[in-house]
This record gives sequence, C-alpha cells and structure tokens, in this order.
Amino acid sequence: MENLHCGVSPIVGFRFTLNPMTDDFVAVIKGALEEVDTSTVWMHTDDVSTVIRGKQVHVFNVAKALALHAAKTGVHVALNGTFSAGCPGDTTGDAFLDKPDEPLNNDPTKQYVSSQFALYPMNNPDYMSVIYREVERAKERGVFNESMHYASGIHGDIHDVFDFYEETFTHARSEEHRHLVMTVSMSINSPSHGGK
Amino acid sequence: MENLHCGVSPIVGFRFTLNPMTDDFVAVIKGALEEVDTSTVWMHTDDVSTVIRGKQVHVFNVAKALALHAAKTGVHVALNGTFSAGCPGDTTGDAFLDKPDEPLNNDPTKQYVSSQFALYPMNNPDYMSVIYREVERAKERGVFNESMHYASGIHGDIHDVFDFYEETFTHARSEEHRHLVMTVSMSINSPSHGGK
Ligand SMILES: [Ca+2]
Repeated sequence: MENLHCGVSPIVGFRFTLNPMTDDFVAVIKGALEEVDTSTVWMHTDDVSTVIRGKQVHVFNVAKALALHAAKTGVHVALNGTFSAGCPGDTTGDAFLDKPDEPLNNDPTKQYVSSQFALYPMNNPDYMSVIYREVERAKERGVFNESMHYASGIHGDIHDVFDFYEETFTHARSEEHRHLVMTVSMSINSPSHGGK
Repeated sequence: MENLHCGVSPIVGFRFTLNPMTDDFVAVIKGALEEVDTSTVWMHTDDVSTVIRGKQVHVFNVAKALALHAAKTGVHVALNGTFSAGCPGDTTGDAFLDKPDEPLNNDPTKQYVSSQFALYPMNNPDYMSVIYREVERAKERGVFNESMHYASGIHGDIHDVFDFYEETFTHARSEEHRHLVMTVSMSINSPSHGGK
C-alpha cells in the first residue's frame, strides 16, 4: 500500500514470454537472450516471464531483436507481452536512462509476422478516441490486418510492424495521460501463415 | 469510427494463446480445443489467438479446462491472454447469455501453475486502489507469489488460481466502471518449477 500515485519516470517496460513450439524450447530462448545485445536495458527473467526496462528506443529494439533471432531458427514462435509506461512508481533501474540513444541490434533480415494488439490508456476519459486514432494509423502505415473482438490485427515485415508499435506507443500517451499499456501477441513461422 | 461509447453487455471475453513447447504443438492445442466442452461460449480461432465469449462463469470454466487439459499431456505449456468486460460495444453473440449457469467442465485433477496478472480498470481515476485491493485479496486467498514490475505473481493449484482470478475479475469492476481488462500469463509443467 505504498504509493498510489502514478510516477513520472520516462522508463518504458516490456514484460513478455517467448514461446518456441519445439522440444528444444530452452535452447531457442537461451540463444535469443544470449545473442541479442541487451546491455541497453535492465532485464530480469523469472519462472513465468521476462521483463526489460529502459529507454523506449531500446526496449522496442531489444524486443524486436529477440523475436527476430528466435524466428531465424525456423521454429514456430509466439511472443506475448505488455508494454507499459508511466505508472506506478517505476523508479528503480533509472541508470539505464543514461544509455546513448543508438539501438545496438540492427539485423535487417525480413521476417513475416502476424500479431494482435490492444491499447489501454489509463485514467483517460477519452481513451476510446485514442484507440480508434491508432487503428487508423495502422491502416495508414500499411500494417493493418483485420478488426476483431478486444484487439486489432497487425501484420507484415517484422521491422514495419515494430516501427508501427513504437510509433503508436509514443502517440497514445501524453503529458496529461502518462500511464499507457499496450498488449501485443505475435505469431511467427506459424503453419497457418502458408510458409511466409 | 462507429460507437465510441462503452457497451453495457454482460458478456465477458478472453482472448488467448495456448503455447505447448513441443514439436507436437498442433496435437496438444487441437486436443484441448476438441475435448473441452466449449458449447457454453462463442469461440473463434485465427492465425494468432483464440477468443471465447459468454457468461463469466463459462469463460473462466472453459479457460481453466483448456489449460488443465493441455497440462495433462505433461508438456510445458504457456497460456497468455486477456479477459475483458464492458467495452467497447460487445454486443454480437449475446445468445450465449441464455446458457444455464452450470459449468460443464469439472475435472478436479490438481495441477500446479505459476502465473502473473495485471488489472486495468478503464476510465477509473481510482484504479490504483482497485489494483492494490485485489493484490491484498490474492494474499488472503493464499495464492500470492511475489510482487514484480507491471504484474503480480499468483501460483498454486490451478483450481485455486482460477477461483481467485474469477473473484478478482468480478470485484475489480462496478456498475460505474464497467470496462475492465485483466491480463494473465500462466506457466505449466515448466522445468523451472522443479517437477511440481
Ligand atoms: Ca505464449
């Protein structure tokens, strides 16, 4: 029952599970976590998920690099996670905000991904307008797939998809409404994708 | 840009991915979807996730039954999903609200699960109080595991864990604040759980 107020830290966080659908799942997860440069983010893994925290640019860069690295094994992989900013009291680990802005993982390999996302702008009476505006942005960016209950489908090349997610995460929060949550569920190398 | 207002439908929804970490993932997923009685919910599966919608009691009952069925294969399985109620305009498929209240899946097999959850009461200025209150509830119910960034750890027998999730989902929304979102990430048969 400590602090019931929202923080003002610029830290962005992403708590996720990377699930390779293979008997060798441990090797795929460890390979991704070891070979991606995660030195720009605070990272912790427990028995259910992994969380990374730091500057927004690095959190999205590391998330994409982990997904891409796992994808290159050819295994069917699911990435499920929640991006958060602005609340509550997200203050420890601020040292990572001193990191330079240059992203360290720059593998340009193309990879088709199909995903779904939902935006939850907290304590914002106008939140539905924010959501509709960001779905329009997805259509403009050419990554919109389809509408559905509780989420929107986003697909295309992994770089275009992550560019959209980072852009929409930036625009869906404001100085007045700092606490933003975005869930993303991503499927890669799925047998449903017809070899894409 | 249709309806920007929240609906008043009592429908509860759960959009999820069930990810068995095995080469035989298709068989595990299909086995769960086929052998669980899902006749009480509206269900749709696409290339990324599955959504079930209906009365709250049935949505939680089917979600638990799918997880338990997959768990009994002995495979390491991750269940990631979002429960939603109250918004936006969740109106089609209301026929399923005519179903009797008796849950149809009643396998009492015990199964240890470790999970993490986050509550997002939408458009509620007092949402942090709701979150802290529900974490206290987890402690009272004996299923609280640990605090962490952006989530809370909940573990124990699958039946106790799902009982908690359904109870907290009921209490974290109100007539005044109908739109509630709850994310759950669950790990079953994990090598990190020491054979539990
Ligand atoms: Ca997953």
